Order: sequence, then C-alpha cells, then structure tokens
Amino acid sequence: MKSVNVYIPGTVSNVGSGFDVMGFAMGGVGEKMRVSLIDGNEIRLVDESGYNLPMVAASNTGAVALQSFRKALNITQGFEIVFETKIKPGSGLGSSASSAVGAVFGANELMGSPFTRKELIYFAMDGEEVASGSRHADNVAPAMLGSFVLIRSLNPFDVVQIPAPESLFCTVVHPQIEVKTSEARSLLPKQIPLKDAIQQWGNTAALIAGLYQSDFGLIGRSMTDLVAVPVRCRFIPNYELAVERAMAAGAIGFSISGSGPSMFAFSDSLETAQKVADAVAEVFTAQGIERQSYVGRIDPTGVKLQ
Amino acid sequence: MKSVNVYIPGTVSNVGSGFDVMGFAMGGVGEKMRVSLIDGNEIRLVDESGYNLPMVAASNTGAVALQSFRKALNITQGFEIVFETKIKPGSGLGSSASSAVGAVFGANELMGSPFTRKELIYFAMDGEEVASGSRHADNVAPAMLGSFVLIRSLNPFDVVQIPAPESLFCTVVHPQIEVKTSEARSLLPKQIPLKDAIQQWGNTAALIAGLYQSDFGLIGRSMTDLVAVPVRCRFIPNYELAVERAMAAGAIGFSISGSGPSMFAFSDSLETAQKVADAVAEVFTAQGIERQSYVGRIDPTGVKLQ
Repeated sequence: MKSVNVYIPGTVSNVGSGFDVMGFAMGGVGEKMRVSLIDGNEIRLVDESGYNLPMVAASNTGAVALQSFRKALNITQGFEIVFETKIKPGSGLGSSASSAVGAVFGANELMGSPFTRKELIYFAMDGEEVASGSRHADNVAPAMLGSFVLIRSLNPFDVVQIPAPESLFCTVVHPQIEVKTSEARSLLPKQIPLKDAIQQWGNTAALIAGLYQSDFGLIGRSMTDLVAVPVRCRFIPNYELAVERAMAAGAIGFSISGSGPSMFAFSDSLETAQKVADAVAEVFTAQGIERQSYVGRIDPTGVKLQ
Repeated sequence: MKSVNVYIPGTVSNVGSGFDVMGFAMGGVGEKMRVSLIDGNEIRLVDESGYNLPMVAASNTGAVALQSFRKALNITQGFEIVFETKIKPGSGLGSSASSAVGAVFGANELMGSPFTRKELIYFAMDGEEVASGSRHADNVAPAMLGSFVLIRSLNPFDVVQIPAPESLFCTVVHPQIEVKTSEARSLLPKQIPLKDAIQQWGNTAALIAGLYQSDFGLIGRSMTDLVAVPVRCRFIPNYELAVERAMAAGAIGFSISGSGPSMFAFSDSLETAQKVADAVAEVFTAQGIERQSYVGRIDPTGVKLQ
C-alpha cells in the first residue's frame, strides 16, 4: 500500500484589516495525516485523532476535497485518509481547512503531482465549503502555500504569497466559548461608509507593505479592522482588556482569528509572544473561561511530506 | 540674494484601486521654480510660467504652504517664488500640489533643512487644501518623496514609500474637457456594499504586492477601482473605448488620474507607453477633443534641487 505522511500547519484568517482576503500559516501547531492508495474506489476515513471527526465522506472536509480532486483527474482511484493528530476543531486555527489541504496534497503526491499547489487550493476550497458553508480560501491558501497569502479574487482565482519577516512571532489564544461562524457572519453590515472603506484599504495596503519591509511598527498600525472586529469582539468577554494586556506585554498588534473566538497577536520575539500568551490567557482564566494558547513563528512552507 | 532652483515631478493620484490612499510621481513631466530669501517678511510671487497662476498669496498653493512652513518655524523671513515653468493646470498631473511641494522644499533648503521630507508634506498639504478644497496628500506626498506613496492615515500622519519597478512606464492623456473636482467628488456614494469594499481592499493590497514583486500582470489585474472610476468615467466621452484601445496597444492597466478627466496607463516599455499614448489620444482626436499626452518612467526621487 503506497502511502505518504503529511504535515499541515494551522492557519489564521483575516489578519485584521485583511478581512476576507488574507491569512497566514502558523509554525508550531499543525496536524498529521497518512494518505494511502487503496484498491477499489472508496474514500476510506480513519480517525485516530481523538476528536470525533465527521467520518461520513459527504461531511468530512478531507473527503470532499479529495472527491473534487478525483473528479478533476477523472479517476476513481481509492484512497485512505488516516487522521493521526488534529488541530483542535473550533480553535480558530483552520482545522477544517487543514484536513482538506492535507488530503489533496497527499493524494496529489501519490498520483505523481499532476497539479501545482495553487491548483490544489481549488479542490481544498470545495472541502472547506462543506465545513463553513461559504466558499473561501483564507485558511486553505496559507495552509497550502505557507507564509502570508493574499486572496485577491476567487473568480478568476488569484492568490499571492506575501513574504513573512523571519523574526515575526505569533500568539493564538483560544477561549472555550462558542461562536457560531454563521451568526458571526450574519451580523456583518451589508453596506459600510465609504470613509471607513477607504481607511480599511489604506490599512490592508500598508499591512502588505509592512510585511515586505519587515516594518513591525507599520504592521501593527495597519492591522486595525473597521468592519468585522467591531461586531465580532462582542462575542468575546473582555476583548478590549485582552487587547490592552497583549499590547502592554509587548505585542505589535492584536486581532481576532477568523470569526473568533480565538484571538492572535504578533510579536518580535518568541519571549514576547509567550508573555503575550500568558497575559491574554490570564484575562480569560480570571473570568473562569478555559483557554488554550499557541505560540510560534510564521510557517514559511505550508503543507509538506514528513 | 540666496536662491535655489527646484524641480518638482508631476504626480498621478488614486492609482485605480488605491482610491484616496495612493499616488505616484511621474518622470519626464514636471515644473521648475526658483525660491529665494529676500529682505522683509513678504512672500513675493513671480509668474513666468505663462499660465496666469493665482498671484494672491492666500490663493496660491505655494504661498499658503510656505506660510504654514514659516509658522511652524516661528519666523517671518521673506521669500520670493518665481514660477518658471508649470505643469499645465487641470492636466491631472497634480500641478497645484507641485507648487506647494516646490515652495516648502526650496525654503527648507534655504533655511538649513530644519524639516525632513515627510514633515514638509504636512505644510504642502495646507497649500493643496486651498486649491482642491479638501485636505489630502495623494499628490503632495509622491511629489515630495518620489516613486509610489501610500497614505495610510492623515491623522496620525502615516505615509509609506513603495518601490517602483524600474521598467514600469506611464502614459498620461489629458483630454481638454472640464471636470469640476468638487462635482466629481459629490457624486461618490456615501456607503458602498461590503462585498465591493472587500474586493477593493483585495485589489489595493495586491497592487502593493505587485509593485514589490515587479509583477506587471498582478499590477494590471489589481488596478480595478469599484468606487470612483464607475462614477467619474461618465464625464469622459468614450472612456470605455479609451480603455479598450490602451489595452489593445499593450498597456498593463488603465485608470483615471485623480478625479479626471486625465487618464493614465502603465506599460512595460517606453515604446509601448508611446503606442498607448497614441491609441488613447486618437479616441479623443476622433471626437474633435484636444488632448495632451505625457510618457515617462516613474520618478524615483521626487522634488530636488537643480
């Protein structure tokens, strides 16, 4: 049985002012799966992760992405996906995207790499759609490509990899409160003031410039999101205090990961990133809310064989 | 009489998707002035340009900017500004900004450079405000710094210089039709759909990435403006035909300069930029509309001594 072992990094989407168009891959947190060619035409799912993943092919993001991959190649080749370790579902680190990315990346390797990484994003998006109910690439694209990724357009499909400063570190804190992505999304305004929109694209553009120039001050100043964060922060008790504590601990910038409730911060050293994690975690511990923290560099490569 | 001779490049503001936050300085078209220290406290204006510039200090952008500069230094030193050659007013190349930039840059040199270029932008904006009725930096900042400039925020003041690919050429065509900036501005929507706003900041961010990566295809794809161009193109007869002819002649991208009626295009060679100029000019000539064309590289340095 021909197999590959695949590692997929966790991802953070939105990145403040990059709402709905950006994401990045995070080092130090990811998941592992084994993808194998099997006889027959089945897509067989094996869950060793301990998280009770959806094991019906139609609702498993990896299986749906893999089915899309098979269709594009016009093949019925059977595959087995063993989910060995998983990013915690709901942790704000793109766990549904990572399964989709790992499955198609592994299958592509086993089939002799008929597709490029960018092409594989398209299949992974089909999987992501099952989990999130909307077609978007701001987790799957960075999980596939690594570093920061800008999704300029889905149709036509146009994604751009943006370099990450080497000494940029990230903290993610996941408080154990439930936020329904669909609810978080339904509260977004349908229209926004032009004045705010202009400020937001000034920030998005400056965030990209900050990443190219490794200008940490500029990165921090440019992260302000006028659209989603003001709505979504209401679901996170004492969000403003968390921001304040993170900045006091030395963070460059702070925002919500995806639709929340996870939050992320950038720092210029591992030590500061850890201090930020502790300071933010304390805000939730003090409220009796369980939380996990993750600290790491930006992952430069994305999904890879192990 | 201590004097300096100053050259100020023409500028294009907005840059498509960079509406209200970007501008660039253009090589091959600019203006010259001589700034001198004089006895007394007068700001004396001498017009040798042939364009009948406003010679009353309160309505001359150079004099207003210079007054703002004097106030910041708390001095009453007299200056003379001789406008030797001018960018044609109304040409869409930032002629009011260039006078303001030249005046404060020259005066700063004569006073021993108490201010940085970025600081001088602030005084030049005071001058620009007199001419345009609104406080903005998307012409004065690139005229001062050169290359592309992103204005992330006016308050606090935060501008970022963005590198220009060496082989990026620009065409500007100015058809002789009158568009009132205030009217062009009043027609802008007060609110825009969130969906459009997201697409616009995806484009603005990608335009910045395209400039850093010298990716001409990405620059061209990212220039689409969903906000101002759809409104302002109505004032330019056969705008769509001009776009079509420019692209057919090999342009990378095409948009309106500032609030119009001038248009600009990017190309990857001087030869193509000239072809684009001819193709666009022909659209207006065929309608009996006079036009001027300008072709050049991006100016890398901004205002300078001669």
